[in-house]
Amino acid sequence: MLYVVFYDITYNELRNKVADFLKKKGMRRVQLSVFVRELNSSRLKDMEAGLRLIYRKSNPGGRFMILILPVTDTLFKQRIVIGGEYREEEGNVVW
Amino acid sequence: MLYVVFYDITYNELRNKVADFLKKKGMRRVQLSVFVRELNSSRLKDMEAGLRLIYRKSNPGGRFMILILPVTDTLFKQRIVIGGEYREEEGNVVW
Repeated sequence: MLYVVFYDITYNELRNKVADFLKKKGMRRVQLSVFVRELNSSRLKDMEAGLRLIYRKSNPGGRFMILILPVTDTLFKQRIVIGGEYREEEGNVVW
Repeated sequence: MLYVVFYDITYNELRNKVADFLKKKGMRRVQLSVFVRELNSSRLKDMEAGLRLIYRKSNPGGRFMILILPVTDTLFKQRIVIGGEYREEEGNVVW
């Protein structure tokens, strides 16, 4: 199953920590705070546990909200993007 | 079909304009920059056109990205939220 991860985090340091974690897990960035990847249940559990650890270990005074949403391939391809889609610096084209 | 709208917009004024527009269209806020609602195709088109108009009319120097994602009810109910889910001030409980 495809999973879209969206986060809304006030503090830069914490936001970067989450982004780095998601990249390490091989999640593909489609917007500055939106990542996507096909995950099986054990990888999903592993990712969720890691994100919860970041949340618990940090004292998130500001906003800290992460949404992990299962989406089908077909529906993800019907997504509508207004404005710009995030392009990874290393030139990996975002589909 | 259920549609999730995420946005990542630098400027407060523009961000508020998008949020107000989505509220006027009856979208339900589940995170500060995430809205959800069941939409038929004509309402989807109407919402998309309105968001594109806001984008075109504004000179978005900063980041301006909106993602509209179709999701099934079943999958939306399987979403995972880490941190807090947004509660509307007027006490409307967010499901």
